[in-house]
Amino acid sequence: MEKLLHTPEGVRDIYNHECESKLQIESKLHEVMNRYGYQDIQTPTFEYFEVFSEERGTVSSKDMYKFFDRAGNTLVLRPDITPSIARCFAKYYKNEECPIRLCYGGSTFINNSEYQGKMKEVFQLGAELINDASVEADAELIALTIECMQEVGLKEFLVEIGHTGFYRALVEDACLDEEETEQLRLLIMNKNRFGVEALLTEKEMDQSLKEAFMTLPELFGNVSRLEEIKKITNTPKAVETIERLEEMYHLLEVYGYEKYVTFDLGTLSQYNYYTGMIFHAYTYGTGNPIVTGGRYDSLVKQFGKDAPAVGMAILTNQLQIAMSRQKTDIMMKKSRELILYKKAYFSKAVNFAQMKRYQGIDCMMCCMENTEDRAALQAYATRVGATCIRIFDQGDTMDTITEWETV
Amino acid sequence: MEKLLHTPEGVRDIYNHECESKLQIESKLHEVMNRYGYQDIQTPTFEYFEVFSEERGTVSSKDMYKFFDRAGNTLVLRPDITPSIARCFAKYYKNEECPIRLCYGGSTFINNSEYQGKMKEVFQLGAELINDASVEADAELIALTIECMQEVGLKEFLVEIGHTGFYRALVEDACLDEEETEQLRLLIMNKNRFGVEALLTEKEMDQSLKEAFMTLPELFGNVSRLEEIKKITNTPKAVETIERLEEMYHLLEVYGYEKYVTFDLGTLSQYNYYTGMIFHAYTYGTGNPIVTGGRYDSLVKQFGKDAPAVGMAILTNQLQIAMSRQKTDIMMKKSRELILYKKAYFSKAVNFAQMKRYQGIDCMMCCMENTEDRAALQAYATRVGATCIRIFDQGDTMDTITEWETV
Repeated sequence: MEKLLHTPEGVRDIYNHECESKLQIESKLHEVMNRYGYQDIQTPTFEYFEVFSEERGTVSSKDMYKFFDRAGNTLVLRPDITPSIARCFAKYYKNEECPIRLCYGGSTFINNSEYQGKMKEVFQLGAELINDASVEADAELIALTIECMQEVGLKEFLVEIGHTGFYRALVEDACLDEEETEQLRLLIMNKNRFGVEALLTEKEMDQSLKEAFMTLPELFGNVSRLEEIKKITNTPKAVETIERLEEMYHLLEVYGYEKYVTFDLGTLSQYNYYTGMIFHAYTYGTGNPIVTGGRYDSLVKQFGKDAPAVGMAILTNQLQIAMSRQKTDIMMKKSRELILYKKAYFSKAVNFAQMKRYQGIDCMMCCMENTEDRAALQAYATRVGATCIRIFDQGDTMDTITEWETV
Repeated sequence: MEKLLHTPEGVRDIYNHECESKLQIESKLHEVMNRYGYQDIQTPTFEYFEVFSEERGTVSSKDMYKFFDRAGNTLVLRPDITPSIARCFAKYYKNEECPIRLCYGGSTFINNSEYQGKMKEVFQLGAELINDASVEADAELIALTIECMQEVGLKEFLVEIGHTGFYRALVEDACLDEEETEQLRLLIMNKNRFGVEALLTEKEMDQSLKEAFMTLPELFGNVSRLEEIKKITNTPKAVETIERLEEMYHLLEVYGYEKYVTFDLGTLSQYNYYTGMIFHAYTYGTGNPIVTGGRYDSLVKQFGKDAPAVGMAILTNQLQIAMSRQKTDIMMKKSRELILYKKAYFSKAVNFAQMKRYQGIDCMMCCMENTEDRAALQAYATRVGATCIRIFDQGDTMDTITEWETV
């Protein structure tokens, strides 16, 4: 019986208030994406393994749910949606040269055993702007993120922006191999300055470059720090990335959203497909990001079409956790009536309920031969979220309806 | 590259108009379910195999997508959602004695190789009314189905109603074993009268019972046939099921929905968990049902709580196929503007777009240094569904915006 009642580890049921609230949040976020011109797309829950294999730079193969089709091909539950959108773009927009905006909602699946308590099925709502290499496109994704946060009623949140190109330029200059690059990336992501120092001590490279790597975990702050950050490196490509971030910041000033923005050049992503600006949105109430995003100019090319792109995904569960802890509830209280009737009054009750439904009021009908116990009925109404009870059990005119508000 | 661009057999991408229309249809259907007081619930995409194993009576084990978790448990992509809802009810509503209404939307997965062209990932929207054994509950699910069809604009459709109890009562009377019952079920479902005859010839049973089985594939028609059907059997349990259908029909007359209803006692379901009334809704444009449903009074008990239940699920893809062939399009044409600007006019363009978005108009921004080729811009606008183009490329007052309608 144990297994019959339980969901597998890392997945769960969502019901009652939480589910209703989740759907309302998703609907509001989706509206914002539409408002920015993003058009809906849905991709399958599982795909060929190749779509997410190592070259794509999403998650490691061992962390994917894999199975086989009848022909013996390896299928995986999608661990990420961006590569699927990249595949679609290469397939359905092969000859498109102008910017295309796509948005989607769906579950992703990561079979991760390392972190206890981490969910394995994670819903996300995402937006991708493809065929657009401009810094204006980068700024749009940040603006869209900020507006999504505002739409659900969040007041205090920050978008922390980095640039993968900065780190890559330093790595290139330092001639680090792949393994060292990855080791260093993890140390920097964990803001482990001493680890970085230890790793670099044995390496031969310019002292100024070593200094740059060592300060990386500390290169965060508001826009005024960008000027300073430019000075710690002579690598032209690294300097260019900072200049692009500065330009993007000025575009965000036009939107009026600069106050939500902060920079962190030590921010690196678990996704290797990012090539430019990357960002995470945070708010209080959860330590995890509520939005992640960035520029990925080489991913679509892997599917056969050379197209720069930038995108973001909102992790709605993290957002909902934060909103709940912040007591920010966007739920609109709906009128919902509980209509109780004795069998003989079925017609009258149905006609009444249909009229109410026509007016846009939710009505639950319930045949009850015994409607005497008011306290029990009241408790039931509360359990099913009814805001009003009506009883059809006597007389034959509408006037004899017993009704009372439950709240 | 082949695999990189393609989706696995039986699953697909949905985009552009089809996707937008799908979401609007789902939203309308969901509204109707809410209006009837159904509350949202979401269950995981995969569950322990046991939730769907043979006793549950959903699909055969070989038709499920199976894989393992790290502890070696067998997981399956849910082939059906009703058993998951039954599990949730037994778990979260253990002590609930009053009717509970739940609704959901999600994909189901059947690894079926037998039917070419049949989709393996199928989205459905469903509603379940649990803890209610009444014929009024049966009628509500039919009324809900009819209202869902009306809501999306369907005019001609039929709900074909049967009763699994009728066939079961005959089978019980005839003392058929499980294998014979299943063979016979398939023959009747395929309306194969001669097959039924051949199977029964060798069996020893009352001639009247044989006649009853043989006429089963022909026992369909409007309510007037129910009277006639009662006469072909002396089995009291079989007669009772017909009487219940008659009662339900009269309840549907109260709703004013009787004209959409037809009966077919030869209708049997692939799902063995149905115990009472079952139904399918059909319309022209697709030979497949667009809605399936029925009463399942023993399923929730298997999860530890004895609760009668009745439910339905709308197969939105079949519905959409039919609607498209019937040229019934519920899409509301949205205003969507394409805002083209030269880099120097970014601020003006953003301010304009933000104002429009604030007014609820979808705006796509696009930086274009060359906006001379009107035909190309017009074609692009059409591709991204823009209803209006505005160009910010000269002057410095609002009056100089070039604009024209694309449709």
